[in-house]
Amino acid sequence: MSVLSLAQIRQFLDREFPQVGGAFAVEEVGPMRARMRLIYQERHLRPGGTISGPAMFGLADVALYVAILANIGPVGQALTTNLNINFLKKPEPADLIGEARLIKLGKRLAVGEVSIFATTSDDLVAHAVGAYSIPPRD
Amino acid sequence: MSVLSLAQIRQFLDREFPQVGGAFAVEEVGPMRARMRLIYQERHLRPGGTISGPAMFGLADVALYVAILANIGPVGQALTTNLNINFLKKPEPADLIGEARLIKLGKRLAVGEVSIFATTSDDLVAHAVGAYSIPPRD
Amino acid sequence: MSVLSLAQIRQFLDREFPQVGGAFAVEEVGPMRARMRLIYQERHLRPGGTISGPAMFGLADVALYVAILANIGPVGQALTTNLNINFLKKPEPADLIGEARLIKLGKRLAVGEVSIFATTSDDLVAHAVGAYSIPPRD
Amino acid sequence: MSVLSLAQIRQFLDREFPQVGGAFAVEEVGPMRARMRLIYQERHLRPGGTISGPAMFGLADVALYVAILANIGPVGQALTTNLNINFLKKPEPADLIGEARLIKLGKRLAVGEVSIFATTSDDLVAHAVGAYSIPPRD
Repeated sequence: MSVLSLAQIRQFLDREFPQVGGAFAVEEVGPMRARMRLIYQERHLRPGGTISGPAMFGLADVALYVAILANIGPVGQALTTNLNINFLKKPEPADLIGEARLIKLGKRLAVGEVSIFATTSDDLVAHAVGAYSIPPRD
Repeated sequence: MSVLSLAQIRQFLDREFPQVGGAFAVEEVGPMRARMRLIYQERHLRPGGTISGPAMFGLADVALYVAILANIGPVGQALTTNLNINFLKKPEPADLIGEARLIKLGKRLAVGEVSIFATTSDDLVAHAVGAYSIPPRD
Repeated sequence: MSVLSLAQIRQFLDREFPQVGGAFAVEEVGPMRARMRLIYQERHLRPGGTISGPAMFGLADVALYVAILANIGPVGQALTTNLNINFLKKPEPADLIGEARLIKLGKRLAVGEVSIFATTSDDLVAHAVGAYSIPPRD
Repeated sequence: MSVLSLAQIRQFLDREFPQVGGAFAVEEVGPMRARMRLIYQERHLRPGGTISGPAMFGLADVALYVAILANIGPVGQALTTNLNINFLKKPEPADLIGEARLIKLGKRLAVGEVSIFATTSDDLVAHAVGAYSIPPRD
């Protein structure tokens, strides 16, 4: 079980990160994991009709953030300290799915990986690993 | 000397990547290097009044792309294969500068690093290293 | 099925990379994957009785190399171009296991991830992602 | 000025990390920087007569560690949390030089980059960026 439910996470994001809504949708959360959708918008496009690197970076980052949030509760400001992303295949102009899995969830540091899939095929289009600093809690 | 002048690069980007204008400005190009400005917009903001990770990722990526472009000419579709970014300090809501330096410029592969600076102080706020695949030329 | 069997890979490594034997053992290969063991030696030790970073880097790198080898045959010189490693927990002085999984196996580029586990517990002690350049074949 | 002199660093390493001597030599330390030499040994060799990835990883890691040590004093156990390395060119079988430069030196986190040069030419053969966790001090 995750600490926060899907409904609680959606409420938290709407309140704290209103810019996430519209751009991303939380599809599922669970123990050490989360699944996010990047909702395709024309501004994500790059020449050649593919989705931009920063849009995929954003999906990876928010998917890991939501996985942490779901599993430790509303910490608010877990900060990305490092993110490494490999681009594997040019995605079609359509929604993308980010499957995040935490591989470490310590008191101060969380590390996780994200696989980014196309929705028009089963192709893995990018893969990222990120490290997050978790602020001390009272 | 770079292969393309600042004016030639600006023309090329306006024609091929119209979405770059408005978001970024090329400030300088030179041998194995380029300097780009992220033009601050409200949509770059994150809670706490800081600039988002994807905006900084985008600056790093475009600065390396422009450094490659300036030094090998209009290859059009040099593709990011890997980008690793460390976030060092939260930037104020203001323009950011990306100083890109190529450390390898081969026929098929380019690698470079980018230091991202605040403009309200001299702080280094992020540092990235990226690898690019260069398509074969005729 | 992998292209090469476990026995064929062991033969190939003994002939081409004699320094791998003694340091590492191939435990299993399969479709898009390999499992390698780092055989503990005193020279892997660091102060505090933990295993050194370079030893874990070496395990990650050889596990990915063997996964590529098992799945495309004896290409000999697939070259590491990028490796990113996160250290999660200090391992005890004992053998380590690297579970490598390829996430892309193209004609020219392979990308994979490796989870490094302790053998004295089930702890994940490190996680790496690597990119490999595959030389053109006749 | 660095906090520790070259002589003090060499003494500290000889006492705390005896395995570093023989393998590496500290050539120079300064504000936010260090230069280390990998002393070539036959066990660093790979097929094709090139130096192994783990040997270069080790050089990058120790050069950053020494740069931190020189600039904050004998913290003993600054821990590598992330290291990302790009391999640019196969080095000849000879000594290598690692030029480390810290880009952030905070109370809890240090980040630095390392350029690895050949000594038989001026070629840059690899480039790494590493993040280190610094234990709390009394």
